[in-house]
Amino acid sequence: MSSDKPAGFHCPMPELNFDTITLAHGSGGKLTRLLLDSMVIPNLKNPWLDEQGDGAVLDLNGPVAFSTDSFVVSPLFFPGGCIGDLAVNGTVNDVAMCGAKPEYLSLSFIIEEGLPVEQFWNILMAVRDACLKADVKVVTGDTKVVERGKGDGIFINTTGMGRVHPKAKLASSRIKAGDKVILSGPLAEHGIAIMSKRKGLEFESAIVSDTRPLHSITQKLVDVFGKKVHLFRDPTRGGVAAVLHEIALRNKLGVEIEESGLPVHPEVAGACEMLGLDPLYIANEGLFLTFASPENADQIVAEIQNWAFGKQATVIGTITDEHPGKVLLKSTIGGRRVLPDISGEILPRIC
Amino acid sequence: MSSDKPAGFHCPMPELNFDTITLAHGSGGKLTRLLLDSMVIPNLKNPWLDEQGDGAVLDLNGPVAFSTDSFVVSPLFFPGGCIGDLAVNGTVNDVAMCGAKPEYLSLSFIIEEGLPVEQFWNILMAVRDACLKADVKVVTGDTKVVERGKGDGIFINTTGMGRVHPKAKLASSRIKAGDKVILSGPLAEHGIAIMSKRKGLEFESAIVSDTRPLHSITQKLVDVFGKKVHLFRDPTRGGVAAVLHEIALRNKLGVEIEESGLPVHPEVAGACEMLGLDPLYIANEGLFLTFASPENADQIVAEIQNWAFGKQATVIGTITDEHPGKVLLKSTIGGRRVLPDISGEILPRIC
Repeated sequence: MSSDKPAGFHCPMPELNFDTITLAHGSGGKLTRLLLDSMVIPNLKNPWLDEQGDGAVLDLNGPVAFSTDSFVVSPLFFPGGCIGDLAVNGTVNDVAMCGAKPEYLSLSFIIEEGLPVEQFWNILMAVRDACLKADVKVVTGDTKVVERGKGDGIFINTTGMGRVHPKAKLASSRIKAGDKVILSGPLAEHGIAIMSKRKGLEFESAIVSDTRPLHSITQKLVDVFGKKVHLFRDPTRGGVAAVLHEIALRNKLGVEIEESGLPVHPEVAGACEMLGLDPLYIANEGLFLTFASPENADQIVAEIQNWAFGKQATVIGTITDEHPGKVLLKSTIGGRRVLPDISGEILPRIC
Repeated sequence: MSSDKPAGFHCPMPELNFDTITLAHGSGGKLTRLLLDSMVIPNLKNPWLDEQGDGAVLDLNGPVAFSTDSFVVSPLFFPGGCIGDLAVNGTVNDVAMCGAKPEYLSLSFIIEEGLPVEQFWNILMAVRDACLKADVKVVTGDTKVVERGKGDGIFINTTGMGRVHPKAKLASSRIKAGDKVILSGPLAEHGIAIMSKRKGLEFESAIVSDTRPLHSITQKLVDVFGKKVHLFRDPTRGGVAAVLHEIALRNKLGVEIEESGLPVHPEVAGACEMLGLDPLYIANEGLFLTFASPENADQIVAEIQNWAFGKQATVIGTITDEHPGKVLLKSTIGGRRVLPDISGEILPRIC
């Protein structure tokens, strides 16, 4: 795989008389229009974007989920993806975690002057492809350019919207003692893929980012289990540990995790050991946690296992009213230790 | 006015054990929560934000306007405002231009490591105040931190939503030959305020940014004139000239502007002359253009003049089917010249 071209995108770039992005591409004038009309709009084509107004007018009814994320990942291209598909999937998944089907995205670029146009093109192709896969539409956008040394290639903000499933009753406050914590798949692949690219590490079998849309499975779970699902969360920055600490602190409940139940690919486990990292703290992009009543946990696990990326779904822990605010890890040899709530940055700019 | 504190905000900053933003504040862990819980959330308080989920769930019905903008203005603080109020008003106005009442915003920060926390606080106070003035709520957000030298203090993305007025029938395609072009007030104040701060210029009476929300007047116009209003546009980057060129090219119509009718404050006109700039190309943040049938133009002007910031509203030109794609300026002495469609950047990072 080329290092700065996502796999599978072979649209020819239009012939242009510029090779790098300049400040004028962010001026709002002729060159901004050229950039949009030659590259962006034809590839993300839909009636809302074609209107090219100050915003898009959408027809919505009832409860709508709304979520935003700015993506500053470094490097821009990494094993398994790039900032383009990450920016689509990241916001799609935040909308999905609200129990909604993601439908519409805004897309806003902050480009550093001097970005090679070919990189911009490859990122755009990844945006397009991720939108097609996730069945979402970019309906409005913005492009800014900052001087060399005032940015880092490109930052992307996406903000997403989608209608909430009528059966969804998701809220942090619905979690209670006894609830099971279900993880959808193996840990830490996104973070380790980024880290390996940064450090120039090579693994026997490539570790690739798990960036992917999650709403097909979360919508299915809400459809089948309704209010028996109490909360979804995707463990991105700070990993599974950050989500569990947040839940524990917010709800004044404890969490107990079984170390033996944590799915981790052997290469990822090896890389974590080599780098001195705990996979529970590493970012994921294509995983989610489900909090649900114990009586439904096995059926929910079985349903996730039917999903293409859910073969390793499993119950990883339990909510308890003991040790409120704390997350405990039960080790394979029977010990229990408190998982620290870290404040520092393990892997900056992972998303 | 202090140079890096917007006027009128005197909330004491909470006592914190850090003076500058660090990468750890963007880690998604304990320090991110500290930043959000001590500074951001208490100041932007509302039920959606309090839920602190991956997104907000909103109840919407019917047509909804959706718009995004990333703000990279430099300097962060300028006469009449800062990046905080600019980011709120900018997106509020894009939603307003769609004929909608702005209701909900997302707010996403990309902070450069080392930003003084006091600057962040002052920006946040400006966000809060602008939200109160515009009657919009920040319902979801994101915070990222990039290393020193990979950003420029702070960039802010806001994405906004609001329900479209039932009487609004706004579309670029509704503009036709004979339509009048109405400008709501004096030109170029935002751009010249930024420029004067950058260049350290002093003017007899301070020129301040016109950043302000516009939806009270645009909603009023739609309410009174309904489909007789064909389009609203706010002339930000690239100024009035950029909007007129876009309309002319898109609709294959011509535009004729009367130079004598253009409202410009004498100080702004003087500054433009000194700096060699044409006010038609300079960014505005609190102005809008209305395109409407000639028979309603005078009443629309009168209605805008009743608005607090509309005293100088006036018809500045006419749409014509002559010279399609071109914008002509009729000078005070009777000559006509083509306004060039500029491609370069006159004032980079104005918003």
